[in-house]
Amino acid sequence: MEQKNSPFDLHLLTDLAVESRNLTMQRTGQELEGVRLDEEEVEHAKITRIRVMNDRAAQAIGKKPGDYITIETRELQQGERQLHEYLSGVMAKEINTLVNYPGLTKSLEQEPTILVIGLGNWNATPDALGPRVIHHLLVTRHLYDAAPADARQGMRPVCALAPGVLGLTGIETAEILKGVIDKVHPDLVIAIDALAARETHHLASTIQISNTGIYPGSGVGNQRIGITQEDMGVPVIAVGVPTVVNSVTIVNDTIDKLMQDQNIAGTKMQNRLQQINDKQKQQIIQQVLQPYLGDLIMAPRGIDKLIRDVGRVIAGGLNIALHPDINQENVSLYLQ
Amino acid sequence: MEQKNSPFDLHLLTDLAVESRNLTMQRTGQELEGVRLDEEEVEHAKITRIRVMNDRAAQAIGKKPGDYITIETRELQQGERQLHEYLSGVMAKEINTLVNYPGLTKSLEQEPTILVIGLGNWNATPDALGPRVIHHLLVTRHLYDAAPADARQGMRPVCALAPGVLGLTGIETAEILKGVIDKVHPDLVIAIDALAARETHHLASTIQISNTGIYPGSGVGNQRIGITQEDMGVPVIAVGVPTVVNSVTIVNDTIDKLMQDQNIAGTKMQNRLQQINDKQKQQIIQQVLQPYLGDLIMAPRGIDKLIRDVGRVIAGGLNIALHPDINQENVSLYLQ
Amino acid sequence: MEQKNSPFDLHLLTDLAVESRNLTMQRTGQELEGVRLDEEEVEHAKITRIRVMNDRAAQAIGKKPGDYITIETRELQQGERQLHEYLSGVMAKEINTLVNYPGLTKSLEQEPTILVIGLGNWNATPDALGPRVIHHLLVTRHLYDAAPADARQGMRPVCALAPGVLGLTGIETAEILKGVIDKVHPDLVIAIDALAARETHHLASTIQISNTGIYPGSGVGNQRIGITQEDMGVPVIAVGVPTVVNSVTIVNDTIDKLMQDQNIAGTKMQNRLQQINDKQKQQIIQQVLQPYLGDLIMAPRGIDKLIRDVGRVIAGGLNIALHPDINQENVSLYLQ
Amino acid sequence: MEQKNSPFDLHLLTDLAVESRNLTMQRTGQELEGVRLDEEEVEHAKITRIRVMNDRAAQAIGKKPGDYITIETRELQQGERQLHEYLSGVMAKEINTLVNYPGLTKSLEQEPTILVIGLGNWNATPDALGPRVIHHLLVTRHLYDAAPADARQGMRPVCALAPGVLGLTGIETAEILKGVIDKVHPDLVIAIDALAARETHHLASTIQISNTGIYPGSGVGNQRIGITQEDMGVPVIAVGVPTVVNSVTIVNDTIDKLMQDQNIAGTKMQNRLQQINDKQKQQIIQQVLQPYLGDLIMAPRGIDKLIRDVGRVIAGGLNIALHPDINQENVSLYLQ
Repeated sequence: MEQKNSPFDLHLLTDLAVESRNLTMQRTGQELEGVRLDEEEVEHAKITRIRVMNDRAAQAIGKKPGDYITIETRELQQGERQLHEYLSGVMAKEINTLVNYPGLTKSLEQEPTILVIGLGNWNATPDALGPRVIHHLLVTRHLYDAAPADARQGMRPVCALAPGVLGLTGIETAEILKGVIDKVHPDLVIAIDALAARETHHLASTIQISNTGIYPGSGVGNQRIGITQEDMGVPVIAVGVPTVVNSVTIVNDTIDKLMQDQNIAGTKMQNRLQQINDKQKQQIIQQVLQPYLGDLIMAPRGIDKLIRDVGRVIAGGLNIALHPDINQENVSLYLQ
Repeated sequence: MEQKNSPFDLHLLTDLAVESRNLTMQRTGQELEGVRLDEEEVEHAKITRIRVMNDRAAQAIGKKPGDYITIETRELQQGERQLHEYLSGVMAKEINTLVNYPGLTKSLEQEPTILVIGLGNWNATPDALGPRVIHHLLVTRHLYDAAPADARQGMRPVCALAPGVLGLTGIETAEILKGVIDKVHPDLVIAIDALAARETHHLASTIQISNTGIYPGSGVGNQRIGITQEDMGVPVIAVGVPTVVNSVTIVNDTIDKLMQDQNIAGTKMQNRLQQINDKQKQQIIQQVLQPYLGDLIMAPRGIDKLIRDVGRVIAGGLNIALHPDINQENVSLYLQ
Repeated sequence: MEQKNSPFDLHLLTDLAVESRNLTMQRTGQELEGVRLDEEEVEHAKITRIRVMNDRAAQAIGKKPGDYITIETRELQQGERQLHEYLSGVMAKEINTLVNYPGLTKSLEQEPTILVIGLGNWNATPDALGPRVIHHLLVTRHLYDAAPADARQGMRPVCALAPGVLGLTGIETAEILKGVIDKVHPDLVIAIDALAARETHHLASTIQISNTGIYPGSGVGNQRIGITQEDMGVPVIAVGVPTVVNSVTIVNDTIDKLMQDQNIAGTKMQNRLQQINDKQKQQIIQQVLQPYLGDLIMAPRGIDKLIRDVGRVIAGGLNIALHPDINQENVSLYLQ
Repeated sequence: MEQKNSPFDLHLLTDLAVESRNLTMQRTGQELEGVRLDEEEVEHAKITRIRVMNDRAAQAIGKKPGDYITIETRELQQGERQLHEYLSGVMAKEINTLVNYPGLTKSLEQEPTILVIGLGNWNATPDALGPRVIHHLLVTRHLYDAAPADARQGMRPVCALAPGVLGLTGIETAEILKGVIDKVHPDLVIAIDALAARETHHLASTIQISNTGIYPGSGVGNQRIGITQEDMGVPVIAVGVPTVVNSVTIVNDTIDKLMQDQNIAGTKMQNRLQQINDKQKQQIIQQVLQPYLGDLIMAPRGIDKLIRDVGRVIAGGLNIALHPDINQENVSLYLQ
């Protein structure tokens, strides 16, 4: 979530595949070819699994081919610990479906080495989710290496890094990671990042898990290297939660709502309103948001606490997914 | 900045007198009686001094009678320390004009005891300005009391408290302060708080200083007691900086901008658009912002760093204002 | 634990009644009159209950008349959450025996208002225990006051304050508290503080609970007012955990050990060694510890983590003790 | 400063070459061959430059061949900012003498890329010096790469990393660094670490700069790879400040002081006392310090503030040394 491209390309203002898909469908008005959708309601949460099946579909919705799972739940925002433990369990189950994806050469039973990356800036609250997860995560690789083979039962070698952001280190995050991966040789990388959403109801209430990697600082981005299987040489699972909505989105949505408003529907006014072209829209957005424009973010008032809570839920989910002896009942006992 | 009243009363969505005054003038279209305005341009900053002269004027602009000084400057947002030191100097000068206000029984030369209060929640970044200022402030009362009379030259007895917010303590902030004031008997209270603005360009670029006290958690508010001279029994100077804009404001402003947009001016569309009534407006706002509504805040992306910087500038300004031996040149040396 | 008196009065270097008692017995070589001792072994912990019955006994052991309960346990230092929850339960039980002490006019069933005070300096790790406990504590007074009478079932009005230390505020901590108590009118004050011990094995492994109040910054101290029933006008329970040992203690103990060492017992050398007088001892202490002397503290290497863990255990213990619906099984769910 | 070897090998309990040298001289009673010593008194500080010239000398004093510069000053502990700025200047000058050491293939004029490493654990106060320095450091490599050649005047490409410790990441720190260095290809590495001293007067008052690299977690250590020119493939300058004294040292020194005490000098007792052998010494140490032994550290009471202050001084020193436009007068303006 480091920095964003043009504030006016709304497609780039969301990191959620589920929003990209809905946005595209609204525009085209029809089902997307090459995008498979599967929705499941579980207790306290709705799970949506999107598979982008080919490059044409990827182009259409602006997300790379692969799997995108979103867990939407109101409960993440509530302070209730017991529900948080439950959500960690739900998340662990979905992680495990991706971990067993063909890309991974070792199954979890073969005790692969897993490197968890906490992306983002620990000095910027809405961007601190990744480092926060690392803070709570159970790290075991150094103990695993020291333990005799039969004592390793039920232990997986997990290591972790919060590399910081370009502004703090002067080094591209992907460069740091590539260097560390070349030394540590993990079998799988799991990268955690705070995301941007377009819809406010997704804030701190949606977990997205994907196997397509991540480009720190952009949606599809133009950086030289990404945290992807191609660039890193190992499978990458990305886990993210939206913590901000770009303010440009809100202004844009307000104009759109006016255009579609029932109370003035079909009137000449709405017809004309719909003729406001993109350039006029941008002028209005600029007038409302200057001098900040793309750098003004919207977040829930209690964002500091939400980041802490969500960080714990995700660290718990990873602990359950990665260590056979940890489950929903005892997950709180292992949070660092 | 604890919690806000109805999210739809736009008047209440700003803590800045300068915005209240402009808002009222826009509505009425004429100069306000009983409000005196004085504007001064200094290097790097514009200073606006508003005096609300009577209750009728207070009613009209929604701010209590008294003086409101705003220092507007782009430089607060820049990371340049030298300009920050300069702004501390500008602020100190304005503070001193209020300190010599009739309410204060002792002049600064008579070494009054001053209690600085850092309002707000240290666990919520945009609300942490007050505690941050206390962190940097030079506190001397305990040294002053221990020093012999002739060693006190140039030292003022300054004490400080960051009392927390109702959600953290279970006690009304004003209750805590009244209790402490009854024991410490300061001659003057200076209360620091993060503010809400309506206009994004005021974010982290405006310092408001007033002698009318403050109601933690509201503009004009309905709490039993405020941090005011009436309730506390000593003069109160409030210093605040806007750190958030309520998201309701942005949606509202977008609609207003559309209504006034030059490109569609005078068209039938705009005429009809202008007929959108307040209820319809509220419906649109609700649709765009649900489920957060009044609890979604807008802040600059780098809010964490801004709070740290602004906290230092204000602590520096207080140090210069309160201690004769501290000035713009050496202010950095005394920041804790 | 703000500041200490003469570094050479070893009696003052411990805040633990159990150490004072042992120290005195070692000196006098006999049971102390007026000191009642009760020891109990429970799972994972040893509980010692000392009652200082009169002023003469108080003089002898340097602790005010009243009850001192210590819970000693290795498990506080282990990272195991399940044992921490258990220890919160043990602590809650002991707190409750003191809460029902005659001083308290309302029983817990009558829903007394309880003010929890987190003493100490949040900027100094070994002194940050008190503020840390407040951070985790369940605060309810503001909800209680707003709830209808029949919805209050099982809720006690608990409020909290971390007032800081003299160096941060310029105000005596007891002054701040007296002011707040005069406004809030609690029925009971519970004050949390980090303590100093003489014996290293007590570090982060002993919880002391007493009903004699506390003098921030000293053992028996010479401050004008203390956080005691006499000065505050309400019963005060103090809860503390040793986090540091003064380095003077260690040098002293080394000399003492040499004097008693079996390997050189009965030799002329030891006889002479035993003739080292207090002044010579002090010279050696000064030589070893200069230039820090009383300001050099000993703490376990992992003190930062210990403070976090112990803070959670004590907050959990208070939550269990004060709220009827919280118990050892669900205590983790209510930690903030 | 991660973990230490046997707590009884006193030679290993100091990271300061100046202490190692003195210790060895005390033992042997004569000048050391192959160790060159140069002492200089400057205002507010004493600078000692030790060159260990060959392997035999290295063996004797337990420090690798190379240069060790120590800056000893009382002023580091004082809160005075102006003196801190001065000390940053003193440090920068000494750094520059090492930077021009033959190992470095590019002179500072050729704008070498410099990687600054903040070793240590940000969650453990006395070990947090390295990350603290990175927090304040001016990082420019990403700006340098983006700037046109003629705008780079006076800018050096500096990047930075705080890799954490083995217990937090599960990865050897040197492994992480080697990976990053292989990607970033810096011309020079500067590694910052908190050190252990044997003498309390060195705490937070001594800066050691050396060109021999560093082994995180030990003096001469037995790790597979170190942060050294041999293992990293680039010159390494290490900068450290003692923040703790191992408690074993204090007990040992107390016994030693007794043996040498003037008041009992020449007596039979002292003769016998000197016969206490190392095993007896260890028993006494164990008795005094159990159950912590090597894990009990001594630190000044105000260690949290000292770490913050010293972190700023060192970051300032690096900024002055590395960027031609930063000097003692303006150093505070560039601290992040």
